[in-house]
Amino acid sequence: MQYASKAKVRQVAAGVITPSTSTYQTLRVDAGARATMDDEVAVEEPLQIRLAGEDVAVLMRTPGHDDELAAGYVYSEGIIQGRRDIEEIAPCVDDNLDQRNVVNILPADRSLLRPLDWGRLSESYSSCGICGKTSIRQVMLTVPAIRSDLRIDHTVLTSLGEKLRSAQSAFHLTGGLHAAALFDAEGNLQVLREDIGRHNAVDKVIGYALLNGDLPLSNRIMAVTSRASFEIVQKAANAGVPVLAVISAPSSLAVDLARECGMTLVAFLRPGRFNIYSRQDRIQARA
Amino acid sequence: MQYASKAKVRQVAAGVITPSTSTYQTLRVDAGARATMDDEVAVEEPLQIRLAGEDVAVLMRTPGHDDELAAGYVYSEGIIQGRRDIEEIAPCVDDNLDQRNVVNILPADRSLLRPLDWGRLSESYSSCGICGKTSIRQVMLTVPAIRSDLRIDHTVLTSLGEKLRSAQSAFHLTGGLHAAALFDAEGNLQVLREDIGRHNAVDKVIGYALLNGDLPLSNRIMAVTSRASFEIVQKAANAGVPVLAVISAPSSLAVDLARECGMTLVAFLRPGRFNIYSRQDRIQARA
Repeated sequence: MQYASKAKVRQVAAGVITPSTSTYQTLRVDAGARATMDDEVAVEEPLQIRLAGEDVAVLMRTPGHDDELAAGYVYSEGIIQGRRDIEEIAPCVDDNLDQRNVVNILPADRSLLRPLDWGRLSESYSSCGICGKTSIRQVMLTVPAIRSDLRIDHTVLTSLGEKLRSAQSAFHLTGGLHAAALFDAEGNLQVLREDIGRHNAVDKVIGYALLNGDLPLSNRIMAVTSRASFEIVQKAANAGVPVLAVISAPSSLAVDLARECGMTLVAFLRPGRFNIYSRQDRIQARA
Repeated sequence: MQYASKAKVRQVAAGVITPSTSTYQTLRVDAGARATMDDEVAVEEPLQIRLAGEDVAVLMRTPGHDDELAAGYVYSEGIIQGRRDIEEIAPCVDDNLDQRNVVNILPADRSLLRPLDWGRLSESYSSCGICGKTSIRQVMLTVPAIRSDLRIDHTVLTSLGEKLRSAQSAFHLTGGLHAAALFDAEGNLQVLREDIGRHNAVDKVIGYALLNGDLPLSNRIMAVTSRASFEIVQKAANAGVPVLAVISAPSSLAVDLARECGMTLVAFLRPGRFNIYSRQDRIQARA
């Protein structure tokens, strides 16, 4: 995953392009060997979109081309009809806000907008996990600290990918379904649920545990076939999961939140190897 | 993508498990040869979650374990605190609704809920693309029919995957960013935008076009590095895109919506081959 082009590095250094990745220290475990190294992680940050001074939505996004994102979003949502409806996309001047993460759209003619139609968006954007919150810091403070004495042998982790694949009932048919699953410390599968949305697969597994009186999940590994975004870590943390392992990459905010709440975040789960981004003390080499 | 296990097929036939896939006819183009075949596609349908008789959210999900999804969702959102807060998860009895796609949660003690906290969710769930709509049919009626005379040689399509990869600035660094791009009929790249969210990458590209006065995109191919879900097709259709090509799998509702609005939907875009799910007349073999 480390094919940084020299041209890219030069452009970022010169400020020509917005850096969309950030460097995080990770512990790579490969065939039992452990090595600390730097890893480039995709940046995930909240963007608040305002229209005519009112909040329209908060999106979790990778910074860069935020004016295009804001314009495209309000167009896709049917709030504006075209270029002529936008007077200007202005930077944020409110000192109380994180100005990098706020975009103001000034409409050409406010009377052409129908606030009743887009007012429904003004308070929430649930899938990002930060609806109604005023800052990412506030969200992080609401996620409970993980309390768990769980310790896992690293060979348990390297076996999870194959166990997920063999347990998935529909993926081989379609290539289109994500799965989330719970395993115990020895790597035995407890439950697996599939969905086209990774966040839904996670909620199904948490709902299964909740309905069975199994929360908090303080002695379970949660494995997900997707990337780890902020919302996946947030859902797992709220359910008390001490170890979250994903097949693909983590986002910057996923790593930040895992470190904040004391969750072990494992990503790039492949046969024989994986990366640990936080609380590596829970993952042990066999004695 | 066609590794249906016989056990799975038997279980679905016997009603033991909920079918999470649906069969769609597709035209497979491989090394120039064209063959019509059946393809198993992941099912995507809206689920309306109600709590104490009030709408909480509409999620786009794959049917199955809907009670777990509803319970996990209201727990993850902080609306309920645990198992004891749920009296019953009841089937829908409202004949005006599609009962398969509605779940009612009856709380143990309604006074323990704080409607002001979850009322923010009651009207919208934007990422699903159907906020505030009462049926998927209603959504489909609001998407405009695609008007375009665009015709594309199939060799243009098979070249897009490599062009996306070479143009992506951050993917090789992180493995975590999606890209959306616009190409002309000859396969020349017009614009590419990246984001951790595929819907954001699409909105950035649409925003770019909007701000440049290029809408509707009636002579452009939109290519996206992700799967094709309902919301991706919906955003592309609203921007007038006649051909949407994705690297991975489509969902059932993505195919349904593409057929409804007359968009050419191409998926599993790989070197030398791809599948066409709708309006195949726009994709032509070289004369």
